[in-house]
Amino acid sequence: MTEASESGEPAARGLAVVGVTVTPIAVVDPPLLTALGVHQPYALRSVVQVHTDAGITGLSEAYGDDPTLERLHLAIPAIIGVDAFDINGLVRRVSAALAGIAPDTPTPLVGVASVDKAVAATVAAFEVALYDIQGKATGRRVCDLLGGAVRESVPFSAYLFYKWAGHPGEEPDRFGATLDVDGIVAQAHALVGKYGFGSLKLKGGVFPPDEEIAAIEALHDEFPDHQLRIDPNGNWTTRTSIRVAHRLAGTLEYLEDPTDGIPGMATVAARTSIPLATNMCVTTFADIPEAVATGAVRIVLSDHHFWGGLRASLDLDAVCSTFGLELSMHSNTHLGISFAAMTHLAAAIPTLPYACDTHSPWQIENVIEPNTIAIRDGRVAVPNGPGLGVTLDEDAVARLHEQYQRCGIRRRDDSIGMRAVDPSWTGARPRF
Amino acid sequence: MTEASESGEPAARGLAVVGVTVTPIAVVDPPLLTALGVHQPYALRSVVQVHTDAGITGLSEAYGDDPTLERLHLAIPAIIGVDAFDINGLVRRVSAALAGIAPDTPTPLVGVASVDKAVAATVAAFEVALYDIQGKATGRRVCDLLGGAVRESVPFSAYLFYKWAGHPGEEPDRFGATLDVDGIVAQAHALVGKYGFGSLKLKGGVFPPDEEIAAIEALHDEFPDHQLRIDPNGNWTTRTSIRVAHRLAGTLEYLEDPTDGIPGMATVAARTSIPLATNMCVTTFADIPEAVATGAVRIVLSDHHFWGGLRASLDLDAVCSTFGLELSMHSNTHLGISFAAMTHLAAAIPTLPYACDTHSPWQIENVIEPNTIAIRDGRVAVPNGPGLGVTLDEDAVARLHEQYQRCGIRRRDDSIGMRAVDPSWTGARPRF
Repeated sequence: MTEASESGEPAARGLAVVGVTVTPIAVVDPPLLTALGVHQPYALRSVVQVHTDAGITGLSEAYGDDPTLERLHLAIPAIIGVDAFDINGLVRRVSAALAGIAPDTPTPLVGVASVDKAVAATVAAFEVALYDIQGKATGRRVCDLLGGAVRESVPFSAYLFYKWAGHPGEEPDRFGATLDVDGIVAQAHALVGKYGFGSLKLKGGVFPPDEEIAAIEALHDEFPDHQLRIDPNGNWTTRTSIRVAHRLAGTLEYLEDPTDGIPGMATVAARTSIPLATNMCVTTFADIPEAVATGAVRIVLSDHHFWGGLRASLDLDAVCSTFGLELSMHSNTHLGISFAAMTHLAAAIPTLPYACDTHSPWQIENVIEPNTIAIRDGRVAVPNGPGLGVTLDEDAVARLHEQYQRCGIRRRDDSIGMRAVDPSWTGARPRF
Repeated sequence: MTEASESGEPAARGLAVVGVTVTPIAVVDPPLLTALGVHQPYALRSVVQVHTDAGITGLSEAYGDDPTLERLHLAIPAIIGVDAFDINGLVRRVSAALAGIAPDTPTPLVGVASVDKAVAATVAAFEVALYDIQGKATGRRVCDLLGGAVRESVPFSAYLFYKWAGHPGEEPDRFGATLDVDGIVAQAHALVGKYGFGSLKLKGGVFPPDEEIAAIEALHDEFPDHQLRIDPNGNWTTRTSIRVAHRLAGTLEYLEDPTDGIPGMATVAARTSIPLATNMCVTTFADIPEAVATGAVRIVLSDHHFWGGLRASLDLDAVCSTFGLELSMHSNTHLGISFAAMTHLAAAIPTLPYACDTHSPWQIENVIEPNTIAIRDGRVAVPNGPGLGVTLDEDAVARLHEQYQRCGIRRRDDSIGMRAVDPSWTGARPRF
């Protein structure tokens, strides 16, 4: 029941944006190892609340690094007055507000920086909230507003990481160390046991490829019916990529970003039967034509956070479908608002042949009221609406904002923790 | 004010389809000449009314030929119960209901027949009505539900036709004959004078190309500031097309379907600087990859009636934008419901560099209450909602349905009228 509908007018009238609250937060993050180094003790996010003249507030979640915050604040004055249904108007206003900014990206793990990508990420940060508002005003779930739920629950993949027991100089965390084949298998058992995941993704590019091949082979032996993927984040040369692909043919459902860049991916793609996936070399619509022309990838990992939002993600699906590409879904560290948005989106994508990625099991903190979203049998049920169907936990947001203020981290940098143990570390890729 | 919102629940709850009324109608149509022959005395349409359990009825307008009606009736049982927001569910249900039908198309002027295209046309016939329902339930215009109006009025193009004074054996109609250069110029003056069109499209492929070139040149002299196009509906060989293109370089904003098929269009495209447009060789998503790979077209003419509806048309826009193609909009003979749908769609397409086509000035009958949609200064203002913003004229529908029953026409066939004056007429293309 909304104020607008109480007035007797159709519920969705009067949804002009009157204000936006952006709250940067920091959440405890385990020392997960990546091609670039290791996750910092805290990951940055921001909680976006978009307020309307109808009294309805929409929620969204974005990156929380300084450049992201700067762009959000640059755009806020421009989006005051936009109607919650006017996604085109949002795009136009944000594009105008950010014209001339310096390109930047929260992490090189989602491809090169560009102004277009910065605009897309900024649009996305608000757009999810506008859909939440639309849903709250009309009594509809976000997935309904995206064309309807094709599935009432969405499969997610276990996200296996090599990790240290604890951050440098700190006590071991509750997950413990994962630094070898046995550790990966044990981690998979733990995640599958707790969440029922039916597919397993290994974040690779951390140890020499033969160790990671051994880990995949061990997972295949241990979980013969599970789908397997590995993602070395472009940390392999094309030569290494081809070698690994030959070793793992028949074992992987897809190989994600073995090497950097469309030309390199095309070289690898031509030499393997394993479908290649990417969230690094195709990260904007402008990347697609070259990828299609060269046959560089068969699967594009959507991510509404940097593709421009939920609607743009559906556009991406339309483009991929047209050109015989498939869609899967990428995850950065995220909390419950984004988890809900990812789930609504994935529910509404007509053909989604792969389980989506999520970092969710690695986060012990959240910003939404509990029990809305849970992974069971490897799937997340689409939250009941209206809108995203999640409720902000204001106390948690305040606590995590304090944590943000205390922690001192203002940009993600995976090299810092690694340099604490290896001062010569650069994170330069390809390392193998 | 909807029943649902009166109950105090959010307005959009309870929008399950409970029934569909399809009313075939026949409208008086002038003897407009085409590559295939001449328009028959009546054009067939159907009025689609989708009824919901909330008491809200959505409107749509589709082709009215027998195969179209058969497919609509085949699909109706399958869509009972679908929610008005569940466009994905509509597509799924219609696809299942029509699996195994024989491909057919209301006219070869919109490309070859395929099951996919028949499904898309059937989906579209219902989908527009579902958006109308969504809008009526939420107090929103259809363009708002498509991402928001980028423009509050949409430019349309004058559609110039060669025509006979009257159908064979009948009195001249009020438009009179147009059979030469002077006639085309006079027709353009009449249409521009009455409607203020800023761009002029000539339906060509009727007379030898030199006559049509002369008509375009005369239009260029008479209307130097107007955008000009010609569409011979694939009635020219590639050789003729290239010759005409050389003659008209610098005069046309685009050249539409000079020749049939993607390979032929690619041959022509490689030899002219005039952008080629199509609504004949790229009419489904499956056609796009080859068109892109061969550079056959620069402009795709969308038409929600056969591309699969409003949402699919936005998908088409996304695909075209990604690959550097542009969008314009095709028209078949249509009435006010489709005119409203076309206008809402065109209003919501972010980049629409060309005036849209409409046959509207050639129709003297309609199925909606008057004064909702009018062409002024070459533009149509987006109707106020909710939904499409048009109201059915029940008396007119009844009258036009009687006309349908009387007229005996059940399929469009442009060759019939032509054979009345030229018994040897086949309509085989390319004729020039």
